[in-house]
Amino acid sequence: MWGKRADVIVRTEAPFNAEPPPTLLAANEITPVEAFYARNHGLFPDIAPGQWRLDVGGLVDTPMTLTLDRLTTGFDHHTVVATLACAGNRRAELLRARPIPGKDPWEHGAISTAAWCGVRLADVLDAAGVYRRDGLHVEFLAPDIAAEARPAQAYGSSIPLEKAMSHEVLLAWQMNGQPLPRAHGGPVRAVVPGYIGARSVKWITAVTVRDHPSHNYFQEVDYRILPPDADPDTAAVGDGIPLSRLPLNCDILAPTGGDRIGAGEVVLRGWAMAGDGQGIGRVDVSIDGGHTWRQAQLHTARSKWAWSLWSLSVDVVPGPLSITARAWDDTGMTQPESPASLWNPRGYGNNAYSRVDVRVM
Amino acid sequence: MWGKRADVIVRTEAPFNAEPPPTLLAANEITPVEAFYARNHGLFPDIAPGQWRLDVGGLVDTPMTLTLDRLTTGFDHHTVVATLACAGNRRAELLRARPIPGKDPWEHGAISTAAWCGVRLADVLDAAGVYRRDGLHVEFLAPDIAAEARPAQAYGSSIPLEKAMSHEVLLAWQMNGQPLPRAHGGPVRAVVPGYIGARSVKWITAVTVRDHPSHNYFQEVDYRILPPDADPDTAAVGDGIPLSRLPLNCDILAPTGGDRIGAGEVVLRGWAMAGDGQGIGRVDVSIDGGHTWRQAQLHTARSKWAWSLWSLSVDVVPGPLSITARAWDDTGMTQPESPASLWNPRGYGNNAYSRVDVRVM
Repeated sequence: MWGKRADVIVRTEAPFNAEPPPTLLAANEITPVEAFYARNHGLFPDIAPGQWRLDVGGLVDTPMTLTLDRLTTGFDHHTVVATLACAGNRRAELLRARPIPGKDPWEHGAISTAAWCGVRLADVLDAAGVYRRDGLHVEFLAPDIAAEARPAQAYGSSIPLEKAMSHEVLLAWQMNGQPLPRAHGGPVRAVVPGYIGARSVKWITAVTVRDHPSHNYFQEVDYRILPPDADPDTAAVGDGIPLSRLPLNCDILAPTGGDRIGAGEVVLRGWAMAGDGQGIGRVDVSIDGGHTWRQAQLHTARSKWAWSLWSLSVDVVPGPLSITARAWDDTGMTQPESPASLWNPRGYGNNAYSRVDVRVM
Repeated sequence: MWGKRADVIVRTEAPFNAEPPPTLLAANEITPVEAFYARNHGLFPDIAPGQWRLDVGGLVDTPMTLTLDRLTTGFDHHTVVATLACAGNRRAELLRARPIPGKDPWEHGAISTAAWCGVRLADVLDAAGVYRRDGLHVEFLAPDIAAEARPAQAYGSSIPLEKAMSHEVLLAWQMNGQPLPRAHGGPVRAVVPGYIGARSVKWITAVTVRDHPSHNYFQEVDYRILPPDADPDTAAVGDGIPLSRLPLNCDILAPTGGDRIGAGEVVLRGWAMAGDGQGIGRVDVSIDGGHTWRQAQLHTARSKWAWSLWSLSVDVVPGPLSITARAWDDTGMTQPESPASLWNPRGYGNNAYSRVDVRVM
């Protein structure tokens, strides 16, 4: 199913959900295709490129049906380096505070970065004569059936028209210079940089402009931050805060929790990313539980939509070692300290300080 | 100097710095002019409206000098309800973690809301033929001399051109329907909603488009988040993260810390505001130290640039009572928990959970 399958941590086989090990993420600003995380709600649809069609409709003057040939020849091509992250990335830390039944315990790896090539969604919507008024939303639909949805339904979601018209949002058919693999949404997927991965709909077959957010289960019910005392099984449609922009966040990728490492100099590595295209101002790292902080070296991000990898060399002595990292964005804002206080019934949006405990031998 | 002077807490008389008591803030979505917080770095300039001039220059095709008559008759008038907040608001909570010499211990009140009337800065810049390219900044200068600056200099700052061209940024001569008082920047001030108050330059006399941020002390040196171990007295030009957008934040305004309140039903009140025009998704309040949370009633904000007041009725029993509040924005992001972890050498940007301790009698 994944062809050349990297050394990934498989969470479920069907639907296929898997994350790369953190050290592999740390070693590459652009994640290799075969290691890119997989978050799916249904089985992969099998759409031959020649059979693929995209219906563009709703609040537009000229509804269109595009073939892959027309999509790739009718509009300018653009490449955007963008990090995608699942809203459930780092859920495992929330689980340590309190269980979250029925949700995968993603560790550090439900995040990856690729160079996506395709056309701007804005250009396609302009060609269809999209209505330009406030309060519109663009719905994406795909044919993969999500059994977990109530009722079971094809996967879908939506983004505000304002975001859909921004230059970074693509309909992409290439990933790191290769044709988009079926496992990552081929022939064509949406790529919505700066938003939770759930909005970058794979195997996209319909783009519909509406005067309301999508009624799809994954927009209207799931992918929402419920209050801590809410019951997700009885939550009503529209309860909770719908997720859209990724928050300021960071993580420690090397070493990994539970590692045994040698005393002396060790290079700590990780990533940081600010919300919706903001920059990172600083990454602080503490090896004394937050009493003192040192500033990590920030590597230049490949684009404003990509993570910044960081590293810091520290000297460590034998014994237990707790490493904490936090990012500040370029407006001077930082992250919440503790995953426990971010606990929510579906386990989304953990952007607390990253902490990793290792033993120095 | 303040004419009808409300019951404000004066921090310093010259320059004049004062904050209204929290209960007064809680009682008014629009803060009365005579109670609006005052944050000044120099003495008020005394500029007669007929003598006021605004020089618009730098990277523009047609530099201009505007009189008040030309400003008020030459451009469309707009009113924006906007909350201004000092970057040092809630500094008192940071001081409890560690001292911050030479900075005022603002409590809850370095924040206020007004209806500002003026012209759009964008319209004035367009009339001057502003260059439209990436990376430009708009500098504001005023004649009030700040003795604390090194070297002593007139107050100034800058904002990115992209922000300057947005509809909410005004050159304002009215506040809550009254001519702008000298104490609040009359005859004319900049109003930059969503940014720290320091960018809403009072008594503005020059607007200059530059290819770099202002070199003024308050842009280049002060109003920055330094790392916790930095020494502000030896920090170099450009050190730290320059503050711009206000972060997601909230506060408890009633009751006030140290209050003694009666047992039974008590209405808790406060404000919440998200970053740069985002909405508030939810306000949680805990009276058991964060073990359980209840959702406050959110009052509709007067504009996307104004705070949302909130209230929650709770039943309380005699004994010590600790109240905690936190806000979530409409993207599902919340605040850091503890002011101690946000401590920074100049004491800016405290957007931790708000906590108030009272005694129930």
